Amino acid sequence: MTTAELELTTTGPHTLRTSNVMKALVYHGPRKRAWEDMPRPTIQDTGDAIVRITTSTICGTDLHILKGDLPSVTDGRVLGHEGIGVVEQVGTGVSEFHIGDKVIISCVTACLKCDFCRRGMYSHCRHGGWILGNTIDGTQAEYVRIPHADGSLYNFPPGGDEEAMVMLSDILPTGLECGVLNGQVKPGDAVAIVGAGPVGLAVLLTAQFYSPAAIFMIDLDDKRLAVAKQLGATTLINSSDGHAAHHVMELTEGAGVDVAIEAVGLPATFAICQAIVAAGGRIANVGVHGKPVELHMEKLWDRNISLTTRLVDTVTTPMLLKVVRSGKLKPSTLVTHRFAMNDIMKAYDTFGNAAKEGALKVVLKK
Amino acid sequence: MTTAELELTTTGPHTLRTSNVMKALVYHGPRKRAWEDMPRPTIQDTGDAIVRITTSTICGTDLHILKGDLPSVTDGRVLGHEGIGVVEQVGTGVSEFHIGDKVIISCVTACLKCDFCRRGMYSHCRHGGWILGNTIDGTQAEYVRIPHADGSLYNFPPGGDEEAMVMLSDILPTGLECGVLNGQVKPGDAVAIVGAGPVGLAVLLTAQFYSPAAIFMIDLDDKRLAVAKQLGATTLINSSDGHAAHHVMELTEGAGVDVAIEAVGLPATFAICQAIVAAGGRIANVGVHGKPVELHMEKLWDRNISLTTRLVDTVTTPMLLKVVRSGKLKPSTLVTHRFAMNDIMKAYDTFGNAAKEGALKVVLKK
Amino acid sequence: MTTAELELTTTGPHTLRTSNVMKALVYHGPRKRAWEDMPRPTIQDTGDAIVRITTSTICGTDLHILKGDLPSVTDGRVLGHEGIGVVEQVGTGVSEFHIGDKVIISCVTACLKCDFCRRGMYSHCRHGGWILGNTIDGTQAEYVRIPHADGSLYNFPPGGDEEAMVMLSDILPTGLECGVLNGQVKPGDAVAIVGAGPVGLAVLLTAQFYSPAAIFMIDLDDKRLAVAKQLGATTLINSSDGHAAHHVMELTEGAGVDVAIEAVGLPATFAICQAIVAAGGRIANVGVHGKPVELHMEKLWDRNISLTTRLVDTVTTPMLLKVVRSGKLKPSTLVTHRFAMNDIMKAYDTFGNAAKEGALKVVLKK
Amino acid sequence: MTTAELELTTTGPHTLRTSNVMKALVYHGPRKRAWEDMPRPTIQDTGDAIVRITTSTICGTDLHILKGDLPSVTDGRVLGHEGIGVVEQVGTGVSEFHIGDKVIISCVTACLKCDFCRRGMYSHCRHGGWILGNTIDGTQAEYVRIPHADGSLYNFPPGGDEEAMVMLSDILPTGLECGVLNGQVKPGDAVAIVGAGPVGLAVLLTAQFYSPAAIFMIDLDDKRLAVAKQLGATTLINSSDGHAAHHVMELTEGAGVDVAIEAVGLPATFAICQAIVAAGGRIANVGVHGKPVELHMEKLWDRNISLTTRLVDTVTTPMLLKVVRSGKLKPSTLVTHRFAMNDIMKAYDTFGNAAKEGALKVVLKK
Repeated sequence: MTTAELELTTTGPHTLRTSNVMKALVYHGPRKRAWEDMPRPTIQDTGDAIVRITTSTICGTDLHILKGDLPSVTDGRVLGHEGIGVVEQVGTGVSEFHIGDKVIISCVTACLKCDFCRRGMYSHCRHGGWILGNTIDGTQAEYVRIPHADGSLYNFPPGGDEEAMVMLSDILPTGLECGVLNGQVKPGDAVAIVGAGPVGLAVLLTAQFYSPAAIFMIDLDDKRLAVAKQLGATTLINSSDGHAAHHVMELTEGAGVDVAIEAVGLPATFAICQAIVAAGGRIANVGVHGKPVELHMEKLWDRNISLTTRLVDTVTTPMLLKVVRSGKLKPSTLVTHRFAMNDIMKAYDTFGNAAKEGALKVVLKK
Repeated sequence: MTTAELELTTTGPHTLRTSNVMKALVYHGPRKRAWEDMPRPTIQDTGDAIVRITTSTICGTDLHILKGDLPSVTDGRVLGHEGIGVVEQVGTGVSEFHIGDKVIISCVTACLKCDFCRRGMYSHCRHGGWILGNTIDGTQAEYVRIPHADGSLYNFPPGGDEEAMVMLSDILPTGLECGVLNGQVKPGDAVAIVGAGPVGLAVLLTAQFYSPAAIFMIDLDDKRLAVAKQLGATTLINSSDGHAAHHVMELTEGAGVDVAIEAVGLPATFAICQAIVAAGGRIANVGVHGKPVELHMEKLWDRNISLTTRLVDTVTTPMLLKVVRSGKLKPSTLVTHRFAMNDIMKAYDTFGNAAKEGALKVVLKK
Repeated sequence: MTTAELELTTTGPHTLRTSNVMKALVYHGPRKRAWEDMPRPTIQDTGDAIVRITTSTICGTDLHILKGDLPSVTDGRVLGHEGIGVVEQVGTGVSEFHIGDKVIISCVTACLKCDFCRRGMYSHCRHGGWILGNTIDGTQAEYVRIPHADGSLYNFPPGGDEEAMVMLSDILPTGLECGVLNGQVKPGDAVAIVGAGPVGLAVLLTAQFYSPAAIFMIDLDDKRLAVAKQLGATTLINSSDGHAAHHVMELTEGAGVDVAIEAVGLPATFAICQAIVAAGGRIANVGVHGKPVELHMEKLWDRNISLTTRLVDTVTTPMLLKVVRSGKLKPSTLVTHRFAMNDIMKAYDTFGNAAKEGALKVVLKK
Repeated sequence: MTTAELELTTTGPHTLRTSNVMKALVYHGPRKRAWEDMPRPTIQDTGDAIVRITTSTICGTDLHILKGDLPSVTDGRVLGHEGIGVVEQVGTGVSEFHIGDKVIISCVTACLKCDFCRRGMYSHCRHGGWILGNTIDGTQAEYVRIPHADGSLYNFPPGGDEEAMVMLSDILPTGLECGVLNGQVKPGDAVAIVGAGPVGLAVLLTAQFYSPAAIFMIDLDDKRLAVAKQLGATTLINSSDGHAAHHVMELTEGAGVDVAIEAVGLPATFAICQAIVAAGGRIANVGVHGKPVELHMEKLWDRNISLTTRLVDTVTTPMLLKVVRSGKLKPSTLVTHRFAMNDIMKAYDTFGNAAKEGALKVVLKK
């Protein structure tokens, strides 16, 4: 693309470029982050869009990055993969979005053209996948460059609420796809969700799309369990006594649950799922795991179970938009704290002490 | 049922009862078996049928039993869960079969009435499941009692071949259900089968119902691999060098296989499946496992895979019957040795030294 | 079965046989019915149960029968295929139910053994299907004989409400199976239901198991539409102006609906479904049709739609029981009138003038 | 795109532009066609590719167009929607194809970005669908412009055969998607295909991916039936006696077929499908219909059948490529005649008299 062209697409009433500098939350190695000046992103490919962020949020994965757990994230990277914003610029190959459009940014970037995208596995897109705030700069900034914009942005619905809609960037499709759809939740099912953090609660909210008869919520934290109760859990189990599986088996009269959803990512919580899944049942893994688990094939080989893993594909975003618009899902129930974008360092402190602060999702507003 | 009734059903031209004694292969604790006199079975419940065995076979599971691996099998049990025979007697509740009918005996007994049977999970039938030659006397005998006969027998097709049809008792539905259907084999797929024993070969035969593009067969034994080649495998991999997974990844240009089917039941072979499954792929377990395996969730959590286990339900028996009758499946290709039923002790010796003898399925004929 | 046996099973504290006569609603040819004395039914087959009716109801199909529309129903037939009751006697082959059990009677009789039952198509059972109140005597009586009792009865849940549970005999599984499941209703879908009679309202109730975003209810009767509103319809369309399809297309901005459910059984209502189904959508037929319809293949051939028909199989009864028990479905909302069983002639009058009487389901109680 | 840019992408060793004129088969109103000079197509959008045609073919739809049946096709249109060729030029937004790539052209153009493409319904793409040789110029020419090239072209497999691969442009995905997949053909099924023309034979070839037990082929023409026999049909039925349905019912002992596939597009052939579909079966429509059909809902309402329509989406092209490469499908068996592209007027004459000429697919080679 020639410079002349670029000028052309960025001129006009919607263009507010007054500076080439912006503020962004930048990773500087383990435990180091700063809200500092960075160059504003520019169009690099015909499929790119530049989006001015109006709302963002922090994900549990961002905390993992800050601990240094993800070697793919290097010094100087702008973090964040969730956000709402307004399109400022588009490349010449972008056809579905225009300057001035308000958009939901998907945490997964999808070229739509590769074999994985064609199969609906955007998470494994050969030119995208989860790259925002990972291998390219992310959304905890004033501006972000979104590659393959046509596959990675969604129109913000008229009359929508930004803090609700930002839950569609990642957490709600994650709960729905990795937990509920992979777990094949059906009307009348008994479902157990291990982990009542934000993503476990997203599973809880979206599991109710399919009218299960019972939802057992398992966590160590009574405050989170209390939230789960409000959001539709039918039975709360505090697992701090080490007997969560035993309780579930008693409550199900020895049958176990049709669907066990792991929303933590540890061997111990994975073990609970194995212990409570009924014959013919499903274990759906949502948690991010750092080490191997012991799989009891000597007990499970003849139990007719399925076990699934998944990185969110965000293919359900159109479905979620329709359900949210119908009023049957209220994602803002997950939001406990709100900060100005400029206070993002404080927001990270709060979210980093989620248990103490009673924090679930922490929203950042421009 | 009164004695009078029983007499009634067993009198008439079809009744050949001349003695109350029969020969049977009896388990007497680890490593002890005998072909000896046993009382002939009688109707105990309205749903029972007594079948005179004309063809039977030996399963790998029978060898496990003889090692003492299955505590559910106790001293005095008649072994065997596969067979073809003729109905000699039926209880008053049996409606689908009549004296004189030639039948295929399913390895799984299904009451058809319980919640599991209603869902097609006959393997977990609350009144049946795998009980023949396990918790009740089995088919390696002159006569066998089949409980819930209407759910556990199938009509032998006119013009059928007994040694082909006895493969429908267990091994073919096992390969098809646990391996192929759970693995969701599709046209064009790359499939790997780990283990070229009888059940792995049954997977191979039935996988071809769905026209995969490539079938990699992995085993330590070149003779078995050569059989696999004849039965449709497209690539043979001898895993004795410890690099089977590496070879598969090279052959698939790093992509891995759409479906990896475990047909051995050991941690090492299960590990191969984990290492070669493509993103978005399926691991279908067929093997019987005696100990836990290490599941690499730290690598698999974001790979969008599914892993399934299953004890054969034999719900596909009607489908298999239709395919065999159409000539598209020739199950007798699995048969390498034939013995008279009276030579069953020798047949066990041969089957117990399968590698040396080049044995796959060993058929016993009356 | 010998007489001696029969005596045996019917003796004891639970047996209340004081007479061989009962009252029943008997069909005597078109427009002729009587509440009159009939012989009490007796066990005829090992799979039979005799049930004493405590609650029954009248189905739209019963009105069709009374018009003489169903030649399979002949003079002298006891009508009715829905009911709740108590098991009075069981044949020797019945294993799942016992004297004294309170049960839900399914409108469809399932032997569980034939090829259709094995595939979950109980409606086409070779020994059953819809026979009650059709080819054998039915449930609008003091007692009824239920063949194949193990496949045709369901345990009444502890603490259940009879007038709610009798909706599980027919109308709720019909709405769910023929309408919702065949229509593949998904979260976020736009669904149109043509016909707000009892079965259309059963579709409405059960469609909500899957969280559609919009439910358009189409009928000629504003009273029924008002009920639909209370039960969850999002948009009401009175079709008396002949422009129902036009209204739906306007409201969906020309897209049409994902699922169009026909719950009337007339060419005109079927035509509405064809006119409003979106590309890629489903038409699920629930209505009973008496004549052919014109199918606009010249418009539909390239629209990627599916059209389904179904006689209820009642395979979803276990699922419905779980959802009702969880409190997520309240079937008694369909009940508008209650009568003593002895007043069944009046109940028929009321139900036969449903529009004028504002009647939906009319419950009969012993 | 600036002129300078266009020059850039078209310069270099692969560019062979020597003239701005090409030969093409042009429609000039009903019954008028000419092989005449036309301007060579040029890039009009960033997603376009210009492909030099090396192989093409004629579709039954082209004959319909020539009769004047499709008002969307206007005077001056280059016909043809099938072809193999070499990429000559690409727009700046094309990422998956490069100058010099040999490609299969899909009959359906897919933007991949719209809601229909996202759901795999490329046929209803909001910016594409079936437009080639319909609303834009097509492939029966020396060059063609392919919009949305990344979604509408497929890499020609190394070592492939052009006359086999051109069957992947339309006829094989049509048979597979509209007939076999919509009909849910399963191992052991009885399948009837009504119409043994090229598309019916494509159904026949691809149905065998799923190992049906019986395939009844129904047609008026014994020559075509003889071809069907060679390609795998198990039973041939000449329908000229007007009793095809009767014969199928006799041969299936009154059960009918699991899947009835309509590959003609007439009320009479559609009627056969209705008459022979088994309870629980599927009717899959492939034929292009010009008028309504009578649907016997008075007979079908309780038969648990499904009826599907579909315009080919070509989403199965990757699967078909894999099966063809594996050698399990030999599409060139459909080719009966070959012509030089310059003789296309003769090729149309031959294809237009298919019955007399014994023509199936007629291949055009540059």
